[in-house]
Amino acid sequence: MTSLDSTTRTADLTDDVRDAVLDVARRSKVAARSLATATRATKDAALQALADALVAASDEIVAANAKDLERGRANGTSEGLLDRLALTPERIGAIADALRELAALPDPVGEVVRGSTLPNGLRLRQVRVPMGVVGMIYEARPNVTVDAAGLALKSGNAVILRGGSAAASSNEVIVEVLGRALEAQGLPRDLVQSIDAYGRPGGVALMHARGLVDVLVPRGGASLIQTVVQESTVPVIETGVGNCHVYVDESADVETALNIVMNSKTHRVGVCNAAENLLVHAGAAPDFLPAALDALDAAGVVLHGDTATQGYAPEGVEVIPATDEDWGTEYLALEIAVRVVDDLDGAIDHIRTWSSGHTEAIVTRDLTSSERFVAEIDTAAIMVNASTRFTDGQQFGLGAEIGISTQKLHARGPMGLGELTTTKWIVTGDGHVRP
Amino acid sequence: MTSLDSTTRTADLTDDVRDAVLDVARRSKVAARSLATATRATKDAALQALADALVAASDEIVAANAKDLERGRANGTSEGLLDRLALTPERIGAIADALRELAALPDPVGEVVRGSTLPNGLRLRQVRVPMGVVGMIYEARPNVTVDAAGLALKSGNAVILRGGSAAASSNEVIVEVLGRALEAQGLPRDLVQSIDAYGRPGGVALMHARGLVDVLVPRGGASLIQTVVQESTVPVIETGVGNCHVYVDESADVETALNIVMNSKTHRVGVCNAAENLLVHAGAAPDFLPAALDALDAAGVVLHGDTATQGYAPEGVEVIPATDEDWGTEYLALEIAVRVVDDLDGAIDHIRTWSSGHTEAIVTRDLTSSERFVAEIDTAAIMVNASTRFTDGQQFGLGAEIGISTQKLHARGPMGLGELTTTKWIVTGDGHVRP
Repeated sequence: MTSLDSTTRTADLTDDVRDAVLDVARRSKVAARSLATATRATKDAALQALADALVAASDEIVAANAKDLERGRANGTSEGLLDRLALTPERIGAIADALRELAALPDPVGEVVRGSTLPNGLRLRQVRVPMGVVGMIYEARPNVTVDAAGLALKSGNAVILRGGSAAASSNEVIVEVLGRALEAQGLPRDLVQSIDAYGRPGGVALMHARGLVDVLVPRGGASLIQTVVQESTVPVIETGVGNCHVYVDESADVETALNIVMNSKTHRVGVCNAAENLLVHAGAAPDFLPAALDALDAAGVVLHGDTATQGYAPEGVEVIPATDEDWGTEYLALEIAVRVVDDLDGAIDHIRTWSSGHTEAIVTRDLTSSERFVAEIDTAAIMVNASTRFTDGQQFGLGAEIGISTQKLHARGPMGLGELTTTKWIVTGDGHVRP
Repeated sequence: MTSLDSTTRTADLTDDVRDAVLDVARRSKVAARSLATATRATKDAALQALADALVAASDEIVAANAKDLERGRANGTSEGLLDRLALTPERIGAIADALRELAALPDPVGEVVRGSTLPNGLRLRQVRVPMGVVGMIYEARPNVTVDAAGLALKSGNAVILRGGSAAASSNEVIVEVLGRALEAQGLPRDLVQSIDAYGRPGGVALMHARGLVDVLVPRGGASLIQTVVQESTVPVIETGVGNCHVYVDESADVETALNIVMNSKTHRVGVCNAAENLLVHAGAAPDFLPAALDALDAAGVVLHGDTATQGYAPEGVEVIPATDEDWGTEYLALEIAVRVVDDLDGAIDHIRTWSSGHTEAIVTRDLTSSERFVAEIDTAAIMVNASTRFTDGQQFGLGAEIGISTQKLHARGPMGLGELTTTKWIVTGDGHVRP
């Protein structure tokens, strides 16, 4: 409901909506220029001011959020989604704290990535600079509105937000509060703009604002992300779909494997770095699988398995026969697909066929297995004897994250502030010409 | 004629062509796996073998090239294009030498980009790995066929080539020669495949092979690049269009400015890093412009200028009134558009309006002007007191280049071997789980 589906095509765009969104993008581009040369002190002060403003406006925001919740309830939205949507003064405080944490992070802008003096005396520097205008298309979580604005501000970018209609009232007030706070800091309001007023066609217009919008980051479910990837002519960073596997090797320590499997699957469901599949070496299965199936079942995890796995199910534990659909599904729920593989090659083949390139884990005590798994699996992150849940910007020490990229271009894995920048080559001579 | 124009749409694709190209891409993906874990020694030996094979097959290649040239002449192709298309034993020798130079460059694969041990003891490494499958869509220069194959091989990638139909016979033989040489080295032929046999629809199918092709690099004219950017769902790196400016500041040394302008414009025309526009500070114009217009005219450069510029034209030097079209045109010829600006702000405004984000140069002796130009102009490369012609992978010391990116995502400016790689996070623990 909140996602742009594939029935929203370019043809639906009216000229009015297109013009309005292009105008937003143009103002965004102009605003971005003033921020590109701002000092870190200016940006950090603004982040603190935004945090203060959100806290001060808590009542206003909670009141707007109540309208979204009411509408959601009337539409029959699930309790889980309503919970994600809900804002309280405490939650607003936490969102504001995240902005303050951003202020404490180093500024990526200005970092000299490479530099040298060439044989002819030219001085060469490759310096990190802001992207310019970042577009965010996301679903019903109003905290993303603030996170995205904060990350963009810290990295020197303007941001254009297209949030889910389910959070429209909350987002409208939040963007207004942020805009007033920016203005009070002497920064342009246009640094943070929303195009929610233009609905889905506005989102489509944003995807086509090539030349004005430098990068689009979709955050949400698989269908939202696929629509943006297919439709957009603006460069996109694909995020988030995680059909993650844990492979338990023949040599794995049973208790270690059990801990990692349980943590990867049940620590938090509904997140992209949760495990959705368990692969077990045939040699490890007799010792490991009965205990694992029992523990998963006891934790309320619905089990799907191949024939071999079914054979290891303890009395009273149901294992539903797994289909190809199971291997390909990101459950985002207490549900897992389990398969017994002949050997490491079998695990690698299975993962190559079904992986979404997010996180793949191996539990092993064998060096060769570990090295081969690391070398032969092509994914954003590989875990050796660790839970898939560690693929996360905060866990990696990158600070706040704008998403987890599952593509190979520009950014792969957790994206922090640095991934919202590009570079510029600066070449200084003394009248140098090519001979 | 050799470019994919916008009339070639998805709808033209027959299922047969699509299936054939997807099959090529699948085989490419499988072949890429064998190369991803190959040592540098293996790859360098293969590059030497490819170079030897090309030289050994010179007669065969020249004969095939003669057919392309004959067809080109019959079609009325210009002498300039025929020259770009032509292969001689000497040119084949130079192309082979470029492969040998690639063998001498460091291997980007395996480089540890970042790494640390986290507070919880997890060992984190971000390691450079090949992209996987690189697609190249290009026009009538058969040397690109070899360059692209060599760059892909060295960076551990498989490559799918879609060359211009004008070079079809040459490319067919070259790909065959490279394939035989790869096989003789124990590497899969499928590492270098051509889809020229499927014509334009094959190129379109390639643009839609998302999930199989990891990145597409179009090389050629603006219309080819725009078609690929608009049509492709595979991530694209936009290359090459260079509407480059030289700005002569009030404080510029006249002789330095003259040298840089002449070198930027006339050192080599028809390349993306040649200057297409000259902006002159009003205060510098009286001393600089008459001499500059005279020198450009004497070098055979067609001059377009605004009214002020026309006023500085020496006797006998014709300055055609410049239009907005001139400011926006990449001439790729002995032709330039000249404008007098009030001050640095005027120059920055003009460049912001018309730049293609490739290379912008300032000639100045004033530190503030230089710093402001560097900070406020958003482009892949900025030259301070140096010719625009220096924006080049070889000149920057990056070795061979696959193109010059004018986009901000992933790569900006000259792209060397490193830009054909992505990264993988490798996280090693001892049974770590999220608390």
